[in-house]
Amino acid sequence: MSYENEHLVIIGASAAGAKAAAKAKRDYPGLNISMFTKEKYTSYSACGMPYYIKGEIKTLEELLVRTPEEFRKSGINVFTHHEILDINPAKKTIFAKNLQTQKIIEYPYTKLLIATGAKSITPNIEGINYNNIFQIRTLQDSINIKNAMQKAKTAAIVGIGYVGLELAEAFTYQGLNTKIIEKDSHIMNHLDDDMSDLLLDYTEKIPNIQTYINAHIKRFIPDNSGNVKQIEMKSGHIVDVDMVVIAIGVEPESKLAQSINLKLGPSGAIKVNEYMQTSIKDIFAAGDCTEKTHLVTQKPVFIPLGTTANKEGRIVAQNLFENRYPFKGVIGSAITKFYDFKAAIAGLGEEEAAKNNINYKSIVISDIDMSGYMPDAKKITMKLVAAKNSNRILGAQIVGEGNVTQRINAIATAISHGLTLDDYLKTDLPYAPPFSTSIDITLTAAQLLKEKV
Amino acid sequence: MSYENEHLVIIGASAAGAKAAAKAKRDYPGLNISMFTKEKYTSYSACGMPYYIKGEIKTLEELLVRTPEEFRKSGINVFTHHEILDINPAKKTIFAKNLQTQKIIEYPYTKLLIATGAKSITPNIEGINYNNIFQIRTLQDSINIKNAMQKAKTAAIVGIGYVGLELAEAFTYQGLNTKIIEKDSHIMNHLDDDMSDLLLDYTEKIPNIQTYINAHIKRFIPDNSGNVKQIEMKSGHIVDVDMVVIAIGVEPESKLAQSINLKLGPSGAIKVNEYMQTSIKDIFAAGDCTEKTHLVTQKPVFIPLGTTANKEGRIVAQNLFENRYPFKGVIGSAITKFYDFKAAIAGLGEEEAAKNNINYKSIVISDIDMSGYMPDAKKITMKLVAAKNSNRILGAQIVGEGNVTQRINAIATAISHGLTLDDYLKTDLPYAPPFSTSIDITLTAAQLLKEKV
Repeated sequence: MSYENEHLVIIGASAAGAKAAAKAKRDYPGLNISMFTKEKYTSYSACGMPYYIKGEIKTLEELLVRTPEEFRKSGINVFTHHEILDINPAKKTIFAKNLQTQKIIEYPYTKLLIATGAKSITPNIEGINYNNIFQIRTLQDSINIKNAMQKAKTAAIVGIGYVGLELAEAFTYQGLNTKIIEKDSHIMNHLDDDMSDLLLDYTEKIPNIQTYINAHIKRFIPDNSGNVKQIEMKSGHIVDVDMVVIAIGVEPESKLAQSINLKLGPSGAIKVNEYMQTSIKDIFAAGDCTEKTHLVTQKPVFIPLGTTANKEGRIVAQNLFENRYPFKGVIGSAITKFYDFKAAIAGLGEEEAAKNNINYKSIVISDIDMSGYMPDAKKITMKLVAAKNSNRILGAQIVGEGNVTQRINAIATAISHGLTLDDYLKTDLPYAPPFSTSIDITLTAAQLLKEKV
Repeated sequence: MSYENEHLVIIGASAAGAKAAAKAKRDYPGLNISMFTKEKYTSYSACGMPYYIKGEIKTLEELLVRTPEEFRKSGINVFTHHEILDINPAKKTIFAKNLQTQKIIEYPYTKLLIATGAKSITPNIEGINYNNIFQIRTLQDSINIKNAMQKAKTAAIVGIGYVGLELAEAFTYQGLNTKIIEKDSHIMNHLDDDMSDLLLDYTEKIPNIQTYINAHIKRFIPDNSGNVKQIEMKSGHIVDVDMVVIAIGVEPESKLAQSINLKLGPSGAIKVNEYMQTSIKDIFAAGDCTEKTHLVTQKPVFIPLGTTANKEGRIVAQNLFENRYPFKGVIGSAITKFYDFKAAIAGLGEEEAAKNNINYKSIVISDIDMSGYMPDAKKITMKLVAAKNSNRILGAQIVGEGNVTQRINAIATAISHGLTLDDYLKTDLPYAPPFSTSIDITLTAAQLLKEKV
């Protein structure tokens, strides 16, 4: 079968858009594919930017998964520096403006994918537009931050989620005096308080880092040339800085979708069905701009993560011409690290379980990550949360300097498939002294939580 | 409730026996517990012995999980250097011989646990009893091997399974010229041929190691003082050695069970039901001496592994007085390493699937274990095997220098619970550049295997 009369147009060339383009090109011979992006770059790893800023990744080029030239070579039309102004679903065209020439073109599609991603949330704070106050979303942002670092001695990071934490590693590693400013009562608010505290304890071991929690910014104060010089807190406290990165979170980029009355979900992200179809025929959406279903609560959620965007991009391509692969949802699995300290979550923590009015029980245990006599054994701490009546596993949070990934992956698999504690206890995990204790911490936690009354 | 009139007697003080003793002591106030072992030591980590021989673990004491004195302090009677000669199930007594005084005692029980473990298989080869030919099963074996190493320049390991491979690391690390002698066509025969070949390629990077496959030993040749000096192969080839370790595998230690006509399974190990009960009332069995059910094939298997023995010991304690926690079985999950190269399995490989007459399909893919731009990214290779019609995941084998544990744990969870490829594709695994690629290799393998016709 040939797809010569079909034309897939993709708005956005990051994870979801680029993945969809590549997969569609492989799967449908003859299909015309055009991909538009406002940016200069296509298909780069946004998740890798903190490591570029840290200097662990030496050149920007390494973050480029696939350049516009490479896409073009494979037969995909790529329009960089192009902003999409409008979509005409009745006529099946889009209007794109070349940001370099200002020229506007009308461009036809038979299938359209909106993969506009998310955008940084800009807080409404006096002085937010002074120089050396950055956000981090695009590759250009990370270039700008890296440049500013060369001249800075002190940097503040406002908001400590995954990206903020990774930036804190980058800044301190580069010798910058680093101030973490978090309005919440704990950093990394994806973690429950108690787990976040363990992370906080660890950050205090790193020189040149200072953490302010429950800290609300009143205004930014500039020097004579308009560069940020100080942060004035609502408490009156003044923090001296040479640069600031705002990393308080992102929101779905759904402006374009709204303009054509695409249905949005309660989170403000684009509503899609399990085949990634929007409310308008032949328009798909994928990645950070879309709403997901939480597999534990079955509620709509806005959890924008790179791995999900990649999966959704692939799934859109597979479903372009018939409904083949449903995307069932997410459990919010995520991991980050700060030097040797890892923090991973899957499913619901206690705070989220409570917010969802679920009657839950939980347990926190610490153990070493391999047999105690192995010289490299390190501590990990695990929280396991289960429904009080059904014993269904709701979520887990695992932190520490030991190997966290192998535990969170096992428990994330269990949560993704709705296993109970009894089910999970049947799991046969491999053991050898350099890799695990003789009964893995996840199994011990499940056993203890099951016995807990 | 008090258990003062109950007396749990445990034969064997290694993983299963020691775990059962400790758990029963915690759970049943007043319960009398007596544990017998032929050895001098109780509750040591047999799996840690290769790392003691390597020198990574400095002292033998570190391998002792719990000494006889510690057990006694907690109120458990421990009889070391005691061999059990007989059991009288009608009268509910055992006969134990003190190997130091030769005194025989008759000892009563109300509940009996047979946890006699497994014993090394001794091949029928001429000269097998010469000095400096060792097996490795007890702590004393590892002391003997470590002593012999001091005077040896060249060591041979006969049989390369998990233990043999770990010993090869220990010997080469200590500068010994190391000869691996394997009668099979590939080393580590838990792995399929193709995966084993990758391991073999890696061993060739290590200096002072030489591997002989399809190698059959005709006889051992001694020097004047009765120490092994040479191995003569059936091919006529002569291998010079100063010491030999036989590590061709183990068989269940079921002699005592047989003597009282306890029912054995087809594998020769003790048959137990899912509450670890044998065919005689009030006699339990657990650990390497028992047969397990394979969760994929539902067939009885003899897969003696430390993590299973620990679980079964705990479960026996839980089921002593009522049937509470069933033990459903194993999927043979196991992992080992040779320097930086890891090899992990879960469920059935292709060779096992074929042996079980299952109509299967499989795929082998290689990928890096984290984002390609991270400087520490390393290669891993994964084989995934699924039933051809149902797409049920049957097994996986993952090898390489990258992080293998987090992948095998996810897929082992899936296999333990009978997931299909479609099910597994719903799994939400966490991603960040230092930990994974944006779509994990296990998900990519599942996708490709699903699409494979």
